[in-house]
Amino acid sequence: MIPSTETDWMALALQEAQKGRYLTYTNPMVGAVLVKHGRLLAVGHHVGFGHEHAEVNAYHHVQNPEDIQDSTLYVTLEPCAHQGKTPPCCRQIAAWGVKTVYVAQVDPHEVVAGKGIVYLRAHGVTVHIGQHESEAEALNRHYNFFYRQHELPYVTLKAAMSLDGKLGQVGQRTALTDTTASTDVQHLRADYQAILVGSETALVDDPQLTVRWRQLDYPPVRVILDRRGRVRPTLQLATDQAAPTWLFTSDSQQIQRFAETAVKVFYRDHWTLTAVLQMLGEQGVQSVLVEGGARVHGAFLATDHWQEIVTYQALKTLGGQAQASFVGAPAPTVSLALVQSQVVGNAVKIVARRKEDADV
Amino acid sequence: MIPSTETDWMALALQEAQKGRYLTYTNPMVGAVLVKHGRLLAVGHHVGFGHEHAEVNAYHHVQNPEDIQDSTLYVTLEPCAHQGKTPPCCRQIAAWGVKTVYVAQVDPHEVVAGKGIVYLRAHGVTVHIGQHESEAEALNRHYNFFYRQHELPYVTLKAAMSLDGKLGQVGQRTALTDTTASTDVQHLRADYQAILVGSETALVDDPQLTVRWRQLDYPPVRVILDRRGRVRPTLQLATDQAAPTWLFTSDSQQIQRFAETAVKVFYRDHWTLTAVLQMLGEQGVQSVLVEGGARVHGAFLATDHWQEIVTYQALKTLGGQAQASFVGAPAPTVSLALVQSQVVGNAVKIVARRKEDADV
Repeated sequence: MIPSTETDWMALALQEAQKGRYLTYTNPMVGAVLVKHGRLLAVGHHVGFGHEHAEVNAYHHVQNPEDIQDSTLYVTLEPCAHQGKTPPCCRQIAAWGVKTVYVAQVDPHEVVAGKGIVYLRAHGVTVHIGQHESEAEALNRHYNFFYRQHELPYVTLKAAMSLDGKLGQVGQRTALTDTTASTDVQHLRADYQAILVGSETALVDDPQLTVRWRQLDYPPVRVILDRRGRVRPTLQLATDQAAPTWLFTSDSQQIQRFAETAVKVFYRDHWTLTAVLQMLGEQGVQSVLVEGGARVHGAFLATDHWQEIVTYQALKTLGGQAQASFVGAPAPTVSLALVQSQVVGNAVKIVARRKEDADV
Repeated sequence: MIPSTETDWMALALQEAQKGRYLTYTNPMVGAVLVKHGRLLAVGHHVGFGHEHAEVNAYHHVQNPEDIQDSTLYVTLEPCAHQGKTPPCCRQIAAWGVKTVYVAQVDPHEVVAGKGIVYLRAHGVTVHIGQHESEAEALNRHYNFFYRQHELPYVTLKAAMSLDGKLGQVGQRTALTDTTASTDVQHLRADYQAILVGSETALVDDPQLTVRWRQLDYPPVRVILDRRGRVRPTLQLATDQAAPTWLFTSDSQQIQRFAETAVKVFYRDHWTLTAVLQMLGEQGVQSVLVEGGARVHGAFLATDHWQEIVTYQALKTLGGQAQASFVGAPAPTVSLALVQSQVVGNAVKIVARRKEDADV
């Protein structure tokens, strides 16, 4: 038997939480560990959107239910305090007779936001907060951002470009990156709830914007910015049914054009990027991966509404008359913190984050 | 005593060669090792431009000169066959009574080019060629390229840019990279015999383009492309005397303007980039680091006259209206091989080489 002081139970809980990756959808990933007298009783994780929470999952894994009396719970996120798809966890934890709860991170979701902890303490449970907090925060970066930023989604700009900063030869579809890099993009997509492109990209590339390496219960929504109503229902995005497609337009005729399709049209006289993001937030979308093109990327840089940038610097040059990446409106200089730099196929992938978001 | 079959003497010779770095100028770096009965007699290297060659340097390090009879010589480059600043090495090696010579790489320089090997063999010395050839080639990449390409210099394009592929905000001098990255650029410069910029860069940045971390006997020449005669003798490049400055112009008035300065003016009615490189080659310049600006970089991409690209991807964004890197003439798509990808200060440094040059 390993004494509890020597075992990092919260690290184990964080590891458990990861098992929910790609399954919890708009819910956070959460891991839980039940311990008594320095002995592991059970582990658990939030197994999927609408399914049991990590604490309950751990509880169901305890071999002898009577052991749970006076046990210690390590959980990566504050136990929930609201009746959602499942009964509030804090009430169950207190009812089981758990003596001490270690919480890595307080839940920023307004329906919890400390209420779970208050409930536990009011019912005689000792609660410690903050162990491995930064790792727990990083686990649900988009979720945390969303609930702290008045339900605006976390935005990542993803661009592939040549070493001379270009997207492609003018008038040609240029395959900048190889299969390894393309596969990496699909892994990236699986971490987002929406993939956003401009109408130009939708028309020229006719992309799928899907995650093809894994069947997802909740694939990211494909969002097309189509202010001028240029997109037609013949595109793959409109016909393939691989994931929901939402069209943001200021051309009212698009409502009629897409009436017979599965595409959801968001019509307004005038859409700003901020308004689009607010609407996506209202729809519950916590994270958006912006895949271009150059003008859409440029438009995002001109707002404050982006947190991260992922570039694939392809090992090619296209020359000084090729299409530049990130064109358009003036924008402030933004300093970033490096998150990752890695060779991926024929490209160097660079992930960087706004400095103010870097530690979140 | 380690038996010779188990010791990689050529690897030791390559290591010795490196001691000449930054000292041999237009000469190659060369290392030599003398061995007898599996025992090391001496090591040597080409110690500097105009100084003794590696073989002679090794010879002078042999404790008992009589040992050299019937010894084996490992040398990273073919022993020279011509009377230069020193007598031809091949003649001395044969005279010393060396029995066997291992040569990693044949010298591409026209005055040697196999003659050294022919001489040795004609004088009863056994010669083996090609051990560690690729490492030996890499050691003197610029030198090898120069003598194989009709004395055109090896050209590397160096650019610092933001993650959105921009050089700076329009009308402002933007410090993209930090001190660590700037110091790295100075280390890069020390590997080149010329640093080339356009007049715009010379005027806007008024740079020094010097190597400040080390006193060099032969600092790289600063080359300014000043077709329209915009540059004036008040610039640092013209006044600081830190290294030679050469001005390529089609404005004949520049001859008069710079007459009282140390700047060497190359005047012609019309300069193409090819003609500039040919002239630099005629002046003995084997390697050129092109530091911009965007139009000069773009012009190089539009020619075939470049071999390598070094980008510093600064962890910043400047926005869609900032100045693009690499602008100008149309150019073919060129695929590159990755040489290095590394975090340097606040930037990701990427070094890539044309695939046809990658293995040289």
